[in-house]
Amino acid sequence: MPEVSPLDAAVNGPFGPHNLPYGVFTTADAPGSARIGVRIGDHVLDAGAAARALGSEDAELLSQPVLNPLMAAGRPVWRRVRGALTAWLTEPEHRRTVEPLLHPLHSVVLRLPFEVADYVDFYASEHHATTVGRIFRPDGEALTPNWKHLPIGYHGRAGTVVVSGTDVVRPTGQRKTPHDPQPVFGPSTRLDYEAEVGFVVGTPSRQGERVELDALADHVFGVCLVNDWSARDLQAWEYVPLGPFLGKSFATSVSPWIVPLDALEAARVVPPARDTPLLPYLDDAKSEGWGLDLRLEVALNTEVVSRPPFATMYWTAAQQLAHMTVNGASLRTGDLFASGTVSGPGDDERGCLLEQTWNGRDPLRLSGGASRTFLEDGDEVAITAWAPGPDGRRVGFGEVTGRVSPAV
Amino acid sequence: MPEVSPLDAAVNGPFGPHNLPYGVFTTADAPGSARIGVRIGDHVLDAGAAARALGSEDAELLSQPVLNPLMAAGRPVWRRVRGALTAWLTEPEHRRTVEPLLHPLHSVVLRLPFEVADYVDFYASEHHATTVGRIFRPDGEALTPNWKHLPIGYHGRAGTVVVSGTDVVRPTGQRKTPHDPQPVFGPSTRLDYEAEVGFVVGTPSRQGERVELDALADHVFGVCLVNDWSARDLQAWEYVPLGPFLGKSFATSVSPWIVPLDALEAARVVPPARDTPLLPYLDDAKSEGWGLDLRLEVALNTEVVSRPPFATMYWTAAQQLAHMTVNGASLRTGDLFASGTVSGPGDDERGCLLEQTWNGRDPLRLSGGASRTFLEDGDEVAITAWAPGPDGRRVGFGEVTGRVSPAV
Repeated sequence: MPEVSPLDAAVNGPFGPHNLPYGVFTTADAPGSARIGVRIGDHVLDAGAAARALGSEDAELLSQPVLNPLMAAGRPVWRRVRGALTAWLTEPEHRRTVEPLLHPLHSVVLRLPFEVADYVDFYASEHHATTVGRIFRPDGEALTPNWKHLPIGYHGRAGTVVVSGTDVVRPTGQRKTPHDPQPVFGPSTRLDYEAEVGFVVGTPSRQGERVELDALADHVFGVCLVNDWSARDLQAWEYVPLGPFLGKSFATSVSPWIVPLDALEAARVVPPARDTPLLPYLDDAKSEGWGLDLRLEVALNTEVVSRPPFATMYWTAAQQLAHMTVNGASLRTGDLFASGTVSGPGDDERGCLLEQTWNGRDPLRLSGGASRTFLEDGDEVAITAWAPGPDGRRVGFGEVTGRVSPAV
Repeated sequence: MPEVSPLDAAVNGPFGPHNLPYGVFTTADAPGSARIGVRIGDHVLDAGAAARALGSEDAELLSQPVLNPLMAAGRPVWRRVRGALTAWLTEPEHRRTVEPLLHPLHSVVLRLPFEVADYVDFYASEHHATTVGRIFRPDGEALTPNWKHLPIGYHGRAGTVVVSGTDVVRPTGQRKTPHDPQPVFGPSTRLDYEAEVGFVVGTPSRQGERVELDALADHVFGVCLVNDWSARDLQAWEYVPLGPFLGKSFATSVSPWIVPLDALEAARVVPPARDTPLLPYLDDAKSEGWGLDLRLEVALNTEVVSRPPFATMYWTAAQQLAHMTVNGASLRTGDLFASGTVSGPGDDERGCLLEQTWNGRDPLRLSGGASRTFLEDGDEVAITAWAPGPDGRRVGFGEVTGRVSPAV
């Protein structure tokens, strides 16, 4: 029986030719030579080598050690490259050329696929924000007065964004509960994950200009998964009045594959109804909207502990982009903006332990009698996702994993 | 009478050979060719050309379009380069070579001298934080409970850091006072400046490691002035619970000259007495401390409106660096961390209009019968500074200027 081509095997899976996410990889025989790869099934196509072999006009953009030059090239080029990749991976006359340029996924090392410019983290899930509000302000309004008028966000640390698989060292710092007479110093005792979705900016914008609500697809190159690790005890003590800082800045993990926005057309859904009138620059009621039906899954030490539904997010990426630039702030190629914790209405749809354990009050029960309030050393968190694709197929995301290593 | 050499004319001024700040410039005949310059008096030495002419081993580091590679080279190299520059500009046999490589300051265009990695803004002036607290919480404690235990800071937008002289477009966005039934959209009506001092990281650190209190000079390449433009109305509405975002992210201006930390030895002073015990990682009582006697001056449309004394800052850059990394966050070459508004105890020492006008209540009286609550279109803000140098000389800083242009 003839061996099935990896390209044929991939067709109906989550990484078929309808997906084609981009990453950057190295191989064991050339560990210093980072290359752009495109995932197809359980293989990685060396995109630069394929482009050179086929005489593509985009060979130089695809022969880089990071995605940034391709990302900066803009949407017409992204579409042209995507069209070419589809042809190379599906048309018999090209397949003969590219098949030898496939690497089994298990044989490569995946790298941080792009240089991060600015990193912004939003707070866009009403379910998450409401639960957090109830936990911390049981006698007050769950949402702050601004929450339904603008997508709240803040800048995070771009320099500590790491690729999936990188160990996360438990952070050390100050904490002080109302019961402590003085601040206490030591490793965080309330280390948490946050399951998020990240949007990666390709096309920049100029300072002083704003990006309109309908321009998302012109600027966003693709989508990844994000684990915005959080030290809840450090955060609680530091965050008034200027927001989270050391409670977040020690590490943020991203998945290695950037799913093109064009691969998510079938995943577009109408965002939740807005019960508060929006200013025109944020009002997406008359447009198609950019809700996205991404189904996340969080596993703690391989046991699924949550299935956060991204479709329930109150604020969309298009609104976040319009808001982020309405004051004239520019975008740069490599900007990453993340959704904030994705949480649905159900108890089993919460995207962080803070919510799942009600800030440690109600431990999360795991199989074999184990339980967690927050993360322990050695714990591994893995976030995956898929979205509806064309013709009943699924669009897969690469997983973002990270293991907690002990404080230094 | 023979013409005086620019090098002799510079000796006793604020940009003499005891200072030697670094910048990046272009000339009219080569506007696309950015080069590293060193300021000497009212001239700029083409540092790369000098290094090549004199066969310096650091010629390549100095022949770059940005300071980052030199900054990344580390303190031993910074000291070697500084020693060489001093020799070239003061020893007769070298002066003949470098004098033709001097450009009059007025003939060059100064560029953003380094690529900004992450930008962090602190809140380190007790006088500023206390006044702000009194303005916004007249019935509560002026300082939040954490203020004297840790240097509060947050991440700003690195992509909108611009060099002195760049116009600042008045930002547009949402605001809502308690009197407004709904958020109002439009150009900011409370645009402010913030006079700050910035520290530029050269030597990086690894994720998971911390930088100790005594390692400032190993990591910080130099010091600049910063105007952290702020839209107080946008900020007031957005900042709870995750901190400032669009109220700050539209623009941050920096001075074009990076003063080497080694030029500020004579400016070191003991920081203010701490009246709250500090955790060991922040406790500088037993070390020399990194208070710096920088005398800032703020001019609004050429009229001096404030003289903020940096020596009064409660938290030093060394403490900020130790805090920023205590959780294992890494440093990258090009990280910029700023002090927050510099304000002294006196009414004429406040570093922003928010304080000077008590949030607009008490207009600032200017000459000719003019007054301001906040900045008007066309206003130009210029921040300068000097510090005590060796032998009674002064160390000058380049000014950071910016003119407000109307909202788009």
